Amino acid sequence: MSHYSIPKRVHRLWSLEHEPALEVEGGDTVSFELTEATDGQFDPGSTAEVIAGFDWDRVYPLAGPVMVKGAEPGDALEVEFLELRSVDWGWTAVLPGLGLLSEDFPDAHLHLWDLSRGDKAGFLGVAQIPIRPFCGVVGVCPDVTEPQSVLPPGHFGGNVDCKDLVVGTKLYLPVQVPGARLSLGDPHAAQGDGELCVSAIEASMSGTARIRLHKGRRITAPQFETAGPLRTDDARAGHYATMGVAPDLMQAAQGATRAMIDHLGAHYGLDPVDAYVLCSVAVDLRITEVVDAPNWVVSAYLPKAYLNTP
Amino acid sequence: MSHYSIPKRVHRLWSLEHEPALEVEGGDTVSFELTEATDGQFDPGSTAEVIAGFDWDRVYPLAGPVMVKGAEPGDALEVEFLELRSVDWGWTAVLPGLGLLSEDFPDAHLHLWDLSRGDKAGFLGVAQIPIRPFCGVVGVCPDVTEPQSVLPPGHFGGNVDCKDLVVGTKLYLPVQVPGARLSLGDPHAAQGDGELCVSAIEASMSGTARIRLHKGRRITAPQFETAGPLRTDDARAGHYATMGVAPDLMQAAQGATRAMIDHLGAHYGLDPVDAYVLCSVAVDLRITEVVDAPNWVVSAYLPKAYLNTP
Repeated sequence: MSHYSIPKRVHRLWSLEHEPALEVEGGDTVSFELTEATDGQFDPGSTAEVIAGFDWDRVYPLAGPVMVKGAEPGDALEVEFLELRSVDWGWTAVLPGLGLLSEDFPDAHLHLWDLSRGDKAGFLGVAQIPIRPFCGVVGVCPDVTEPQSVLPPGHFGGNVDCKDLVVGTKLYLPVQVPGARLSLGDPHAAQGDGELCVSAIEASMSGTARIRLHKGRRITAPQFETAGPLRTDDARAGHYATMGVAPDLMQAAQGATRAMIDHLGAHYGLDPVDAYVLCSVAVDLRITEVVDAPNWVVSAYLPKAYLNTP
Repeated sequence: MSHYSIPKRVHRLWSLEHEPALEVEGGDTVSFELTEATDGQFDPGSTAEVIAGFDWDRVYPLAGPVMVKGAEPGDALEVEFLELRSVDWGWTAVLPGLGLLSEDFPDAHLHLWDLSRGDKAGFLGVAQIPIRPFCGVVGVCPDVTEPQSVLPPGHFGGNVDCKDLVVGTKLYLPVQVPGARLSLGDPHAAQGDGELCVSAIEASMSGTARIRLHKGRRITAPQFETAGPLRTDDARAGHYATMGVAPDLMQAAQGATRAMIDHLGAHYGLDPVDAYVLCSVAVDLRITEVVDAPNWVVSAYLPKAYLNTP
C-alpha cells in the first residue's frame, strides 16, 4: 500500500477526457488539497457584492481524476476519510435563483465565518456551530458522452452534499467506467441535512482518504457507513423542530424551513436571511412520514445545544 | 391543576359534531388508553389473511375530543408526554395499495412482535428494535364543515406519525376552533422516520400528558421540542446508509429504501418484504440535499446498533 498526493491542478466538469491526475491500487491512500467551491472568488474581506460579478465557469474545482487499477463497472469503490482539516475562515452565501427558498430570498447575501477556534464557529452571538469537515463532492466519473456539470449529483455520487461523510466514514460508489476516475471537491466545514440556502460553511480543506476496491459489489447509488456517534453531542440538549405538512415533499420541506425561520426570528431575534443561513449550516431535514396519503410531513430539526441561550 | 382520565369511548373522524369527552384547563393532566389503529381487528394469533377482511370504517379509533377552556384560533396548545406504555405485543403490516413501495409489494403481509421484554423487540434473529412508545395521531380538530378522514395529517397535526413524540417531548399545535378539541390515537411502540411500509410497531398503549395553553402564540403547523438525546444510543455503533438520487424527493426516498432492502437481503439474508418491514420500524429517511438542481438526495439510515451481527 502506497501513499500519494493528488497534484493541485483541477478540473471542473465530469468528463472522460481529463488527463488522470494519479493512478492508485486498492488499499492506497491519497492526500488532497481542495479549494472552496468558487475557486478563490471569495476572501475573508469579501462582501455580497462579489456575487453579482461571479465567474460561474470557475465553480467546483475538483481534485482528480484518480484512476484505480482494475476498477470496472460492477465494482464498488470505497473511500474512507482519514483526515479532513478546514482552513481558518469560511463563507455561506444566498445565491439568487438557487436554494430551497429562492423565491423568498431573491437577493444575494454573504456571511463570513471565523473558523480559527477549530472546534466551533460562532454565529452572530446566537449560536455555535461544531466544525465537522467533509467533501460536498465525491464521485466516480459517470459514463458521459459529453462533459457534464458538477452541480447535480447522480448515481455515481458527485455533489451529494452529505454531512456525514466526515473522518471515519466509508463511502461506497458504484464504478461507472474503467479506472473509476475518482474526483473530490466542494469542501465544507459544517452543514445541515438539506443544505437549505445552497451553501454550507464553505471552506478550503486538506485531507487524506484510503481507497479500496470491492470487485463485483454491485450497488446502484452511493452508500456509506459511519464509524460511530457522529451527532450525539448535538442531541445532548434536545432539538427544536418545526413540521411542514403538504401533498408534496418539496412543499413540506419548504414549509418546515419557513416555520424554523419564523421561530428563529421570534425567539432569537434573527433577521430572516440570517435565520436562513443558520438553517443551511445547522438544521437537519427529516422525512417524518411519507405514507399517510395524500399529505406528507417533513420536519426541520435544530439542535438546542448549538444555541447560546434558550 | 387537576388530573382527568379520558373516557374510553372513541371517535373515528375529525368533526366538530363529536360530544366532548372532557373539558380541562391549561396545566391539567389527562390519562388515556389507546387501542391500536385497527381497533382490535388483529390479535397475537392473527395471520395476514385478516387483512383481506378488514373493516376500514373501524380504523383509527381516537380518544377525545378534549376541550381546553379558553383555547381559540391563534393560540398554541402544548401537549407534553409524561408517560407512555405499550402493551406486550404489536403488529406491523404491509397493506395493499399503501406504503412508500406499494407497487413493489402488492400483497398483504403481517409481522407480529413480542414486546414483553419491555425495552427491545427482536426481529427474526437479525435485529433488536428499541421500544419507544408514541402516539401516531395527536391533533386539534381542524375547522371542517364535513367530517374528515384521520389518515392524512394537516396543519392541525393529527396523523403526523412523528417518532420523536415520546415521553419528555412537548408538541405544540395551532388551535383551529374554540376549545381546541384535542384527540389522540394510533399508538406506536417504535417507528423509523418515514413509516415506510405504512405501519409502525402498532401496539395499544396507556399514557398521560400535560396540556398547556399558550395564548396568542401563533404557529402555522405543529412544532415540537425534545427533552434530550433521544437517539444517542442508536448512533453508538454508527449507521449504514443508502442514498437515492432523483429529480423528485419521492423518487429519491423510494430509491434509498429499495437500496436498503437490497442491502438487508444481501448482508442479512432477509426476504424483501421482511426487509421492508424492518425499514418501516427502524430506518430513518433524511433529506441529504435539496438544492443541487435538478437532482435531490434522500438517505435511508439504519442504526448498526440494532443489528445482532455485523
